[in-house]
Amino acid sequence: MQIDEIMQRAAAAFEEYRHITPANRAAFLETIAAEINARREALIAIAHTESNLPVARLNGEITRTTSQLQLFATVLQEGSWVEAVIDTARPDNTPARPDIRRMLLPVGPVVVFGASNFPFAFSTAGGDTASALAAGATVVIKGHPAHPGTSQLVFEAITAAISKSGMPAHTVQHVTGEGNAVGKELVMHPLTTGVGFTGSFQGGTALLNYAAQREVPIPVFAEMSSINPVVFYPDALATQAAQLAQTFAASVTLGMGQFCTNPGILIGLKSEALEDFVTQLGTAIAAVAPQKMLHKGICEAYEKGRTRILQEKEVALVNESTAPAELEAWPVLARTTAAAFLVNPALKEELFGPYSLLVECADKTELIAVLKSLHGQLTTTIVGTQADTTQWKDVIAIQSTLAGRVILNNPPTGVEVCAAMVHGGPYPATTDARFTSVGTSAIRRWVRPVCFQNFTDDMLPDALKAANPLGIWRQVDNQFVR
Amino acid sequence: MQIDEIMQRAAAAFEEYRHITPANRAAFLETIAAEINARREALIAIAHTESNLPVARLNGEITRTTSQLQLFATVLQEGSWVEAVIDTARPDNTPARPDIRRMLLPVGPVVVFGASNFPFAFSTAGGDTASALAAGATVVIKGHPAHPGTSQLVFEAITAAISKSGMPAHTVQHVTGEGNAVGKELVMHPLTTGVGFTGSFQGGTALLNYAAQREVPIPVFAEMSSINPVVFYPDALATQAAQLAQTFAASVTLGMGQFCTNPGILIGLKSEALEDFVTQLGTAIAAVAPQKMLHKGICEAYEKGRTRILQEKEVALVNESTAPAELEAWPVLARTTAAAFLVNPALKEELFGPYSLLVECADKTELIAVLKSLHGQLTTTIVGTQADTTQWKDVIAIQSTLAGRVILNNPPTGVEVCAAMVHGGPYPATTDARFTSVGTSAIRRWVRPVCFQNFTDDMLPDALKAANPLGIWRQVDNQFVR
Repeated sequence: MQIDEIMQRAAAAFEEYRHITPANRAAFLETIAAEINARREALIAIAHTESNLPVARLNGEITRTTSQLQLFATVLQEGSWVEAVIDTARPDNTPARPDIRRMLLPVGPVVVFGASNFPFAFSTAGGDTASALAAGATVVIKGHPAHPGTSQLVFEAITAAISKSGMPAHTVQHVTGEGNAVGKELVMHPLTTGVGFTGSFQGGTALLNYAAQREVPIPVFAEMSSINPVVFYPDALATQAAQLAQTFAASVTLGMGQFCTNPGILIGLKSEALEDFVTQLGTAIAAVAPQKMLHKGICEAYEKGRTRILQEKEVALVNESTAPAELEAWPVLARTTAAAFLVNPALKEELFGPYSLLVECADKTELIAVLKSLHGQLTTTIVGTQADTTQWKDVIAIQSTLAGRVILNNPPTGVEVCAAMVHGGPYPATTDARFTSVGTSAIRRWVRPVCFQNFTDDMLPDALKAANPLGIWRQVDNQFVR
Repeated sequence: MQIDEIMQRAAAAFEEYRHITPANRAAFLETIAAEINARREALIAIAHTESNLPVARLNGEITRTTSQLQLFATVLQEGSWVEAVIDTARPDNTPARPDIRRMLLPVGPVVVFGASNFPFAFSTAGGDTASALAAGATVVIKGHPAHPGTSQLVFEAITAAISKSGMPAHTVQHVTGEGNAVGKELVMHPLTTGVGFTGSFQGGTALLNYAAQREVPIPVFAEMSSINPVVFYPDALATQAAQLAQTFAASVTLGMGQFCTNPGILIGLKSEALEDFVTQLGTAIAAVAPQKMLHKGICEAYEKGRTRILQEKEVALVNESTAPAELEAWPVLARTTAAAFLVNPALKEELFGPYSLLVECADKTELIAVLKSLHGQLTTTIVGTQADTTQWKDVIAIQSTLAGRVILNNPPTGVEVCAAMVHGGPYPATTDARFTSVGTSAIRRWVRPVCFQNFTDDMLPDALKAANPLGIWRQVDNQFVR
């Protein structure tokens, strides 16, 4: 089918879907979750074949995916997400102030690109799709070519839910195919009103460039590239080296490092405690058994990248796991100095896999220079005791500006799906630091505010009617009330 | 001075200014307002010379400008604008959920372009500057070349306020100059983190294109071009023609039509009532005395545009004011048919001045076709009685998707500065329909969300501390509390 026909259908479906009540949209999301659950075994089997991911992980990821759909259903049922703001009329003002009421409304059909590293949670029925459908947008999914069968089966679950819930037939559509041509056509189509993407820097910036060529600009939410710097402050290293080595070895190698929140750079001040920590961390990382990566392309890129980095000037291998079998990645810890890191841009690039680079700083000045040299990040982690956070307050203040999520004494892997989550950050972590792709506020990517002036109550959307029939939280004359 | 030096200073000032307390930022905004008030007479005198705007209007606009600054001061004092969201720890979850807290934080130095048609309210100390300073961003203002003296005097008021309030010296800087080179350099500078602009489609899209050439993308908030369609539904025309003619003649000619919310297209169904209305509206518009426009360039563009449109096929003059003197614009009402309007893109372009085009539709099908053919708009107005809004519900639903502000039975000119206001809309009305440039939520353009995970209370920003020391509204475990 032609992309034009698909987008025409998505736009026509939007004209119906946008009028469907929040309660019915919620029921639709819950039905998608149920249909995915009904196919759980088949989904795990095919995803395991296509992605090499362990069965237990895939099972957990399906649960995360269905939970996300259910979470957005509860967001719709609760209803306050529309950010209703009401300024009532003030006829005695000069000039008289009319009644003005604002809420968020969906933008139109959006295009979602599935990610390779999360065949469920960031793919066909993942967070982008769930948040867009919750917002009232219709969705065209470009399935990831690394797991076409998984994507197709998830789409069948969505199709079944569309049918059972009585939604417009083309509320969600599925497009497959290798290469960039289809993606380009989808992003550039005049009826497309937004784009969601999780993947590589190259992929995300390509979509951004296509969007820049459009006659009418649209937002592109691409979550792309992050090395998630962790700073180990001195007192923590001196007192917790063994525990930290275990925690961060697990974080670096979790899922063979195939997470966008993988801690790719570990920063510390030159000291004996740092040497102790590095030795223990290297040993712990080397003890992790190699596992298969998602697909051949990712594995080859990891092998090449690892070889290239270890050949860079002043980069040394600390420790690594045993030699891997085919498609397997072996966990690696490398190290370098701040001086080398500061002059070599190659060391700041993300290497997707179970790898991390320790950067040793001679002093506070170097530590600050390293932090200031970093690009925008999804996360940054402060590892420090109370003594550290007091002593290094100024450095922590600089570190805290790097990312969308600033973490104290937790590994960055593991992204809670909750209201306060920001899974986003300054470029190149994402193309738009003002939004998150995980958590309930991900819904804001697919809406725009509209205000209604001097409307009669019967003409207003329910969310803005005087009696508040939906019982939602609203800001009325600058007070939050329900 | 070189742009690079200016942006370096803005970035350095940001590192200080972002740490200044909301209360002190509020006091700063109030001091700017006071310093402007202290220069009111001198400001009016120079602005009147530079812009030709009447003294009474300029006086009112200064009040609007100082009120805006004071409004953002109250927003800072109240404090809830940071959208604090708190998800407390759930240690019993599997895996355990850490404490996660989110708030909005400023992005960095931003560039604001002053508008020609509002030498105060949308210029040097206008809404963009006020909202950016409130957010905690530092500001580089590109003064509009049509009122350099006004801009300089306003900047002196700001400078005095910086000094009196003890703000960093380069919290606000002022750049002048004709031509596009300076603007391009400002938008493309690596330290610039956002752009605000109010002006022409050509100007706004030029800035958007510069931004697209940057290595690191930044948001460009350009408010550009809108013809603000008004639909006059039949029963309203049949029962209120005389009153509507007065109201809309005043709206079309207010400030010689030099408003972005000017009603540039008036749509109605072919009928005797429409003819009555058109005649009366034409008479009322012709009765308005010509006045000087803002500057020679705008006046010449208006004269050329008026001549060009009246030469278009099937466009007829309804009525116009007397022949003007130098620099004056004469109010004009023209008319055409939906059939001609639908095939002629030139008729959809904004003509900046006291002009409006009546589009006569043969039937409902044509009316819908006209509405669907329109670009994105700042406003759209429904003129209808209760009988109309019942009978034409489906047409009104289509009309309501056109704009950021949908109005019932008010003229679109006059933009309230309040919490619910959306002064924005789909492209080409603005470059980003998700934000407003008027009203308190304009502050959102200069911030991004940051979440803090597992932080100890002493390390959190005040807005997120457990005891809520600022006493702001926060969303805690999905409940709004204070």
